[in-house]
Amino acid sequence: MTDSTTLDPAALRMLDAAEALIRRHGPAKATVVDVARALGMSHGNVYRHFPSKAALREAVVARWLHAVVVPLEPIVASPDPAPARLARYIRTLAGLKRQKVLGDPELFAAYHLLAEEHRDAVAAHVATLRGHVATILRQGAAAGDWQVADPDATAVLLLEATMRFHHPHHVRDQAADETAPARLDAVLDLLVKGLGTAR
Amino acid sequence: MTDSTTLDPAALRMLDAAEALIRRHGPAKATVVDVARALGMSHGNVYRHFPSKAALREAVVARWLHAVVVPLEPIVASPDPAPARLARYIRTLAGLKRQKVLGDPELFAAYHLLAEEHRDAVAAHVATLRGHVATILRQGAAAGDWQVADPDATAVLLLEATMRFHHPHHVRDQAADETAPARLDAVLDLLVKGLGTAR
Repeated sequence: MTDSTTLDPAALRMLDAAEALIRRHGPAKATVVDVARALGMSHGNVYRHFPSKAALREAVVARWLHAVVVPLEPIVASPDPAPARLARYIRTLAGLKRQKVLGDPELFAAYHLLAEEHRDAVAAHVATLRGHVATILRQGAAAGDWQVADPDATAVLLLEATMRFHHPHHVRDQAADETAPARLDAVLDLLVKGLGTAR
Repeated sequence: MTDSTTLDPAALRMLDAAEALIRRHGPAKATVVDVARALGMSHGNVYRHFPSKAALREAVVARWLHAVVVPLEPIVASPDPAPARLARYIRTLAGLKRQKVLGDPELFAAYHLLAEEHRDAVAAHVATLRGHVATILRQGAAAGDWQVADPDATAVLLLEATMRFHHPHHVRDQAADETAPARLDAVLDLLVKGLGTAR
């Protein structure tokens, strides 16, 4: 997987061009040929950074998913109590996904299609989210907020139990559902209380 | 919506015929003409019971969904403690859906397609499940197991928090995932404990 955070400036310009093409013409247009044409350069130049159309598209998906992760990182690093941060993390994740759908449903649909083709990028994204939640669970265990025998397994559970609110399939269907944030708060309240009983 | 439990024997034979056609030839074959031919009767005879192809297909979907509800009813009626029954209800629901997928993936896919066309039948089914869970929540509140201000709203939450394990979209994707039942148990444990803190 290409990590867009370590790409050089030329590769980043290519990803910008690919994103602009997707925004204007849909996911089919994110090809090496289209990107080269948009930037007025040779195909070979693009291929030096992205050896195939698949590699280019996977990098586009990875960068799109990474944009969701960036605002979550401060929540993991914050010194606030873990129970509050656990709820805030999942609430923020759901809010970011919801904003993406509401802000530009067609772009969301285009990226969702691309993501369906690049399951490795999606798996890496999910692994990042799980790792963050597991870190918060370990911090809470260290602070005596709860006892969690297997933080990695419990992180999977917590993300599964709230998937109605952040899984792209459901976020798309419920974007107009204005009571969803309140329901997520109530589910998080139950889950955090449930964790707290094993103290 | 047609309630298949109140249909007369002739209508039930027509639904049996429609199900046999779906099983053999896929969802496209559940039409009034096909059912009439299969039973050697006139179209008019079928139309007297099901005024349209849509009505016939909706009744087929309703009966299929009702088959999931039947084994759940004794759990609602049981005198066992509500917390155990709440977990058992959702675990059984997930198990029934999983069995349907594993038992005959093609038939499940056929019915899933039909259900996508008949959202009213699906909505009625979901309302039944929510009503059952709300009943168990009220019984638990009456017994002092928990305080639940709005059992109907909490029933929605509990089914949403476990949808990974009973929503057809996810059940189909995870049918081969043998750790799913253990994860559902762990989620139910957290949720029931969370409910129990408001005692």
